[in-house]
Amino acid sequence: MTLYESYASDLSEAIAAGLFRPGDRLPSIREACRQRGISPATVFKAYYLLEAEGLIRAAPRSGYYVNARPTDRRLLEPKPSRPKTAGISIDTRDLVYDIHASLKQRSGVPLGSPFIDPTFFPLDRLRQSLVAAMRRLDPWSSVVDLPPGNRALKRQILKRYLAHGMKLAESEIVLTNGAMPALDLCLAAVAKPGDSVVIESPTFYVALQALQRRSLKAIEVATDCGEGIDLGRLAEVLEKRRPAACWLMTNFQNPLGSLMPDQKKRELVALLAQHEVPLIEDDVYGELYQGDVAPPSAKSFDRHGLVMHCASFSKTLAPGYRVGWTAAGGFATQVERLKLSTLLTGAIPTQAAIATYLQDGGYDSHLRRLRRTLADQQAVVVDAVHRYFPEGTRVSLPQGGYFIWLELPEPVDAVELFWAASAQGISIAPGPMFSARGEFSHCIRLNTGQVWSRKVEDAIVKIASLVAWQMPRSSPSPH
Amino acid sequence: MTLYESYASDLSEAIAAGLFRPGDRLPSIREACRQRGISPATVFKAYYLLEAEGLIRAAPRSGYYVNARPTDRRLLEPKPSRPKTAGISIDTRDLVYDIHASLKQRSGVPLGSPFIDPTFFPLDRLRQSLVAAMRRLDPWSSVVDLPPGNRALKRQILKRYLAHGMKLAESEIVLTNGAMPALDLCLAAVAKPGDSVVIESPTFYVALQALQRRSLKAIEVATDCGEGIDLGRLAEVLEKRRPAACWLMTNFQNPLGSLMPDQKKRELVALLAQHEVPLIEDDVYGELYQGDVAPPSAKSFDRHGLVMHCASFSKTLAPGYRVGWTAAGGFATQVERLKLSTLLTGAIPTQAAIATYLQDGGYDSHLRRLRRTLADQQAVVVDAVHRYFPEGTRVSLPQGGYFIWLELPEPVDAVELFWAASAQGISIAPGPMFSARGEFSHCIRLNTGQVWSRKVEDAIVKIASLVAWQMPRSSPSPH
Repeated sequence: MTLYESYASDLSEAIAAGLFRPGDRLPSIREACRQRGISPATVFKAYYLLEAEGLIRAAPRSGYYVNARPTDRRLLEPKPSRPKTAGISIDTRDLVYDIHASLKQRSGVPLGSPFIDPTFFPLDRLRQSLVAAMRRLDPWSSVVDLPPGNRALKRQILKRYLAHGMKLAESEIVLTNGAMPALDLCLAAVAKPGDSVVIESPTFYVALQALQRRSLKAIEVATDCGEGIDLGRLAEVLEKRRPAACWLMTNFQNPLGSLMPDQKKRELVALLAQHEVPLIEDDVYGELYQGDVAPPSAKSFDRHGLVMHCASFSKTLAPGYRVGWTAAGGFATQVERLKLSTLLTGAIPTQAAIATYLQDGGYDSHLRRLRRTLADQQAVVVDAVHRYFPEGTRVSLPQGGYFIWLELPEPVDAVELFWAASAQGISIAPGPMFSARGEFSHCIRLNTGQVWSRKVEDAIVKIASLVAWQMPRSSPSPH
Repeated sequence: MTLYESYASDLSEAIAAGLFRPGDRLPSIREACRQRGISPATVFKAYYLLEAEGLIRAAPRSGYYVNARPTDRRLLEPKPSRPKTAGISIDTRDLVYDIHASLKQRSGVPLGSPFIDPTFFPLDRLRQSLVAAMRRLDPWSSVVDLPPGNRALKRQILKRYLAHGMKLAESEIVLTNGAMPALDLCLAAVAKPGDSVVIESPTFYVALQALQRRSLKAIEVATDCGEGIDLGRLAEVLEKRRPAACWLMTNFQNPLGSLMPDQKKRELVALLAQHEVPLIEDDVYGELYQGDVAPPSAKSFDRHGLVMHCASFSKTLAPGYRVGWTAAGGFATQVERLKLSTLLTGAIPTQAAIATYLQDGGYDSHLRRLRRTLADQQAVVVDAVHRYFPEGTRVSLPQGGYFIWLELPEPVDAVELFWAASAQGISIAPGPMFSARGEFSHCIRLNTGQVWSRKVEDAIVKIASLVAWQMPRSSPSPH
């Protein structure tokens, strides 16, 4: 073994042992030379070798970093869901609200949280943008913009669509107070009480609540954590059940993390067009991809104005600013009108602040950093799950977003697990939150977007042992 | 006549002739001495006399100002409405949206606007509060506050209730993105599709839109521009029709401006308690009273948690900040839960800004100034209406808020008038906007909260002549 091979091998072992974690910086060339008494050329060769093996990456002008890559993936991915597709009236139980309240506790380890660690947001830059925007804001804007909202922001959003190859009209954009009101208004625009709406199984609990509030029936369609909703099943449902709309997350679905491939999105849009069923596309995680290229939205394949694309800055930039929108296709006028008698509009100062932030540049480089960070975060959490969770656990490996979905060995009850973990100051999101029928009782969603630390690792160890504790001890696991 | 009586008489005539308008400052003592060659004592005596007559008022350390008091009130007040109380499904016509869009035009004279002139808001102070609040804001607030929203703001709101003698629990306050979402969520909490809801006739058009959106039937109850809804009629409706809720504006009703007397509010609350019907109380204008004492809310008489009191800072401080709330009595938990799946919450920065503004003091003195300004503004607009509108016109004289309601001589069509005025760059709010059945076709609402100027006066003259033009010329008016 040459000197550089030996150094590379040592580093590789150190990475495998977790001495260097994903996102960690390797010693600089100079440091390595000093530490090992070797030449810069030797260090370079060792680093090149590790880079070729995919273990580390070079960041221009800043050094070498450990890549996100679990060392041992002994657990399988979760199986696709198999919901009954009969429409169901939803009755959200108190439990969901109790759980939601507990997910936001700051103390403890918020692995059930819907948000990433707020320290990942550029809060100082945003504050500066807010101050600058307020200095420039015309007093009349508070009257003239109620609604439609801040025009500069609309233009910035249109520019971002254009960068993704989508040329939309300004009139198509309806600004809202985060993505949730956008989704809700889109739903109101296309479905009336008693109608059925197709959702994924499992699905984001807010979709369930929105359907309940509007007296709509849910048709749950099988969805897997790889490529999303089952188009075959969906086609059957469209044929037989004539739903008023579909509400889907095409990119990094919450809670599964699934990513619908481009071709599948194209087919989805064609299928819906054939049945003239509108799509409410919840795309709040689309910017948080791990690959080199942004995944397209289903909207980008739409030629009939049937897709209402809903997104926000809440997952990427500033949850508290409450700025979201929908590009609502042929329903934009209707959605804007519905907004008039509910929201009126979002807060003008925060809209103006985000417009200023986008104008001044820096959002894209923030996003690049954030994507890399979240990818590293995910790898290290997935790694820990593979290391600590008992045999028979299945875990998803999303290509973006910040959630992973765990299917626990069958006897384990996720809600019991939730309470047991809560008692130890750890939150998790139990599966039944994400189902109209309270299914997924042995599944949990974990947030991978909390800054990795000994405390987070300990929390994962604790959850894993709570899982093991719930499993029958005498007989071997059925998996 | 003494010297001071003669001077007072001259001033009184000048005020009657409109040379001094409500809110105008009279010459200082020194100026008056110089102008008339009289002694300070003479000027003082003249001013005391005018003050005793109620024509002017002294403002400590700043001089004497002309009081709001129309000189010639030749027009009568509008008659109470007489709606059919059969429930009606609402079908808001496109017209309402077209009209609403046009009301916000900055160019021209926005006498149809729902907002006061933005220069009346303390925008600089608010901006400073926003900057200060952002400097102090804990990054975690953007996670922890989603929902319930900014706690400091909740406490400030509770303090204001306490100042009005109402001790509410923090858990009763649900922060929303302006009052409109609060009203809408309260409606959702107590009424399901197909239910009937009592509203005033005429009523705020957003109530009509909200009812339509939720597939609710409207029961319109007679309301006059003096004391509000007809309790006798309401009692009949409660007896016979079992509505799911009442949605009323107890203080300075929009569009009538009526103020329900304290005793009537007490009776209203008792009547609703007897029938166990919840009240959604829209009280966004309550702070804009002209008298010496704030009118109480119906909520203040509620002992059963049946009143959901909705208010905001949009009419008094900052429409664009979108900060409102409801004190939702026994329905607070339900409303907070509904909020979770729609709004989540309002923007945290603007909530924190208003909390800071309130903490630092100055809101009450701003309100005192604003009340005085709006009272003066109203007097001068009412004055102009009395002067220029044709015989047979009736006009309300609200004790607060910033709208007046005009009943025009019968053949006049308010929607036609709206279009004719629009063509001249003047907006008005035509009566049919405020009715489920498109009634009040000969009524208009005028905004008195735009800075008085020659341009505004000209606009009123133009509307008056458009009205006269629509009236039959050959025969005398039937009124």
